Amino acid sequence: MDFKIIDNGVIAPKGFKTNGVKKGKYGVGIIYSEKDCVAAATFTTNKVVAHPVNLSKEILKNNRNKIKAIVANSGNANCFTKNGYYDAKEMIKETAKLLNVPENSVLVASTGVIGRKMPMDTIISKINEAYSKLLKESSNSNTVKAIMTTDRFPKTIAVEFEVNGKTVRIGGITKGAGMIAPDMLHATMLCFITTDIAINSSDLTKSLQNAVDKSFNNAVVDGDTSTNDTVFALANGESGVKYSECAELFDKALTYVCTELAKMIVMDGEGSTKLMEVCVKGCASKEDAVKASKSIVRSLLVKTALYGGDPNWGRITAAVGYSGVEMDMDKMDVLISNFDKETYLVKDGIPIADEGTKELELAEEIMQNDKIKIVVDLKLGNYENTSYGCDLGHDYVKLNSEYTT
Amino acid sequence: MDFKIIDNGVIAPKGFKTNGVKKGKYGVGIIYSEKDCVAAATFTTNKVVAHPVNLSKEILKNNRNKIKAIVANSGNANCFTKNGYYDAKEMIKETAKLLNVPENSVLVASTGVIGRKMPMDTIISKINEAYSKLLKESSNSNTVKAIMTTDRFPKTIAVEFEVNGKTVRIGGITKGAGMIAPDMLHATMLCFITTDIAINSSDLTKSLQNAVDKSFNNAVVDGDTSTNDTVFALANGESGVKYSECAELFDKALTYVCTELAKMIVMDGEGSTKLMEVCVKGCASKEDAVKASKSIVRSLLVKTALYGGDPNWGRITAAVGYSGVEMDMDKMDVLISNFDKETYLVKDGIPIADEGTKELELAEEIMQNDKIKIVVDLKLGNYENTSYGCDLGHDYVKLNSEYTT
Repeated sequence: MDFKIIDNGVIAPKGFKTNGVKKGKYGVGIIYSEKDCVAAATFTTNKVVAHPVNLSKEILKNNRNKIKAIVANSGNANCFTKNGYYDAKEMIKETAKLLNVPENSVLVASTGVIGRKMPMDTIISKINEAYSKLLKESSNSNTVKAIMTTDRFPKTIAVEFEVNGKTVRIGGITKGAGMIAPDMLHATMLCFITTDIAINSSDLTKSLQNAVDKSFNNAVVDGDTSTNDTVFALANGESGVKYSECAELFDKALTYVCTELAKMIVMDGEGSTKLMEVCVKGCASKEDAVKASKSIVRSLLVKTALYGGDPNWGRITAAVGYSGVEMDMDKMDVLISNFDKETYLVKDGIPIADEGTKELELAEEIMQNDKIKIVVDLKLGNYENTSYGCDLGHDYVKLNSEYTT
Repeated sequence: MDFKIIDNGVIAPKGFKTNGVKKGKYGVGIIYSEKDCVAAATFTTNKVVAHPVNLSKEILKNNRNKIKAIVANSGNANCFTKNGYYDAKEMIKETAKLLNVPENSVLVASTGVIGRKMPMDTIISKINEAYSKLLKESSNSNTVKAIMTTDRFPKTIAVEFEVNGKTVRIGGITKGAGMIAPDMLHATMLCFITTDIAINSSDLTKSLQNAVDKSFNNAVVDGDTSTNDTVFALANGESGVKYSECAELFDKALTYVCTELAKMIVMDGEGSTKLMEVCVKGCASKEDAVKASKSIVRSLLVKTALYGGDPNWGRITAAVGYSGVEMDMDKMDVLISNFDKETYLVKDGIPIADEGTKELELAEEIMQNDKIKIVVDLKLGNYENTSYGCDLGHDYVKLNSEYTT
């Protein structure tokens, strides 16, 4: 890797502060930059949209080069709420007042239950608490915890790399539990990225969109987006390094940060014990590659087979078959690997791993690993895509994971 | 209802015999008609297709007015198998020889594991056993059990109605466990329908397709079809009643039979305790109505809310929002009912059932019932569709069912 993993998440880059508070059902986190930030964002594509999403979109439209802060709450999604737009405004107003920054420099995000009035007294008091804590010290971990809902563990990462003797940092936090990922992430995915690179908003937007497509959109978000899904990226230029000096490396590092955060969401499933990386190549189009790889990681039968350590590759081929992509079952290869050993299960449409074969034995051994790679080659073109998914554990799945054994 | 529910499934109509055998992993069932039958079928749309599906398609293409029997096995799907086409032929050959009927008058279906050689010795010996039993007596229940795989209970129904003093009967059996329905039914759905009406193949095909669209395709099969999904309908004319004498009533009765069988599959989920009937109306197109209603019954969050008895209607609106249909969240109504009491949750885009309201209280009461109806009105057009789904139970879902409580 051309970059190093470091601590402190969103406060790893220079010039950012953060803190948060969580008590009971509700939490609030604030991220603050002393300097103006260039901002980029990606949002849910759901037609039912939460008020903070609409409001943040407005702010970014008018003021995307002078963003100072993000305020986010957990416990209530502020979606399908009569007065919700004004409640989201109120959150911004209070945060802006405390930080002494313009109201149109604060972005807002919410996660939690849909259709219930925002408990504004509680939220406002928690904004004040988070601010008081932030005044005293910064704590990336408090902010991560403040925005968690059904998450079992906090999710954060940061990286740094050198450019002409200067250090560029990118940090991120995310929340969202991939319990039944990827279908599940209408449990809202929030992700906040900070960086001290100097970049304009069009480059940051492009780099973020690319990173999100390769990471969150391949693991969790996609069509099954929540009403609140939000990724914000803030760049304050404090590193003294320009994007033009290291565009490729920055894109790579941002994609890495997003991919690692997305994998953490996928792994945060109740009972999930294994991660699968599914690459479908040889596709006739990029769309086909995306469809087929997502179809596999979504398949409840593939997920239960993964849990059961059962190389039931028929389920993989079936998931490609019903994904709607161009394919010829008599051409396809299916290979699995544990990043050490690998074996074909199907080669040129011929089943390799039938009962009693050494390939099936090896496949069974590979399936015991907690990280599995599945490669499907359709041999119809040059497009490929990689998606991330987890297994499906517990009693609930007993029936399926034991089906072929 | 204009028809009566009766016993004996596929042997309720005159002139049909059946029996089956299941021991250990493998089972075989045979359905036989003394007279030639007109036949219709619907098959999986999966591009990975099992050999029995291809073979049965061929037979129906050439001989759809002279079908005499169906032979079906459980335990192996005969899909992605090198020699599978010949194995399926072998099953037909053996059955035809025993029944003394032409080989091209026997349809074949399989369900079970994909990608494993058919254990032909076992299957052939079970075909012989099933035939010997059928010679002695008919047993609908043996045949249902013979084709079960992960099913927890046998699924069968029959109806009869009078036309000009004569009795028409329709009987059906099905297998398939909707454990995680509807996504799950790449666990293969097989359904065999018999009737003693006199009907030509084009009318039977049309009537069956209509019935399957309204039933199985709204509950289970859809895009996530298995490699083996098969519905066969056989009509032998023994009632002496012509389809033209009672077309509307026959269509209705056949749709009823298929819908009841589809609901049984949906209910056969591990831990599933509740059935939901979801009608989305006021849609701009039929496609939108289908997409939106299926999106709701598929939503793992709606399913877990149903299990938890939690009227978390935000999840319903979100599932419509990400289904991709034309909609305006400020217009929509959402209503739930237990077929006795009902209440709006959202009316003209305004949340009705907020905390502390009597509507939320009533909604909570309604959600305790084991059969729930959800009606969503998008108020954009005249198209509607009804889909069927079940809740998602067990430990596995604890986290989500308790999320708002």
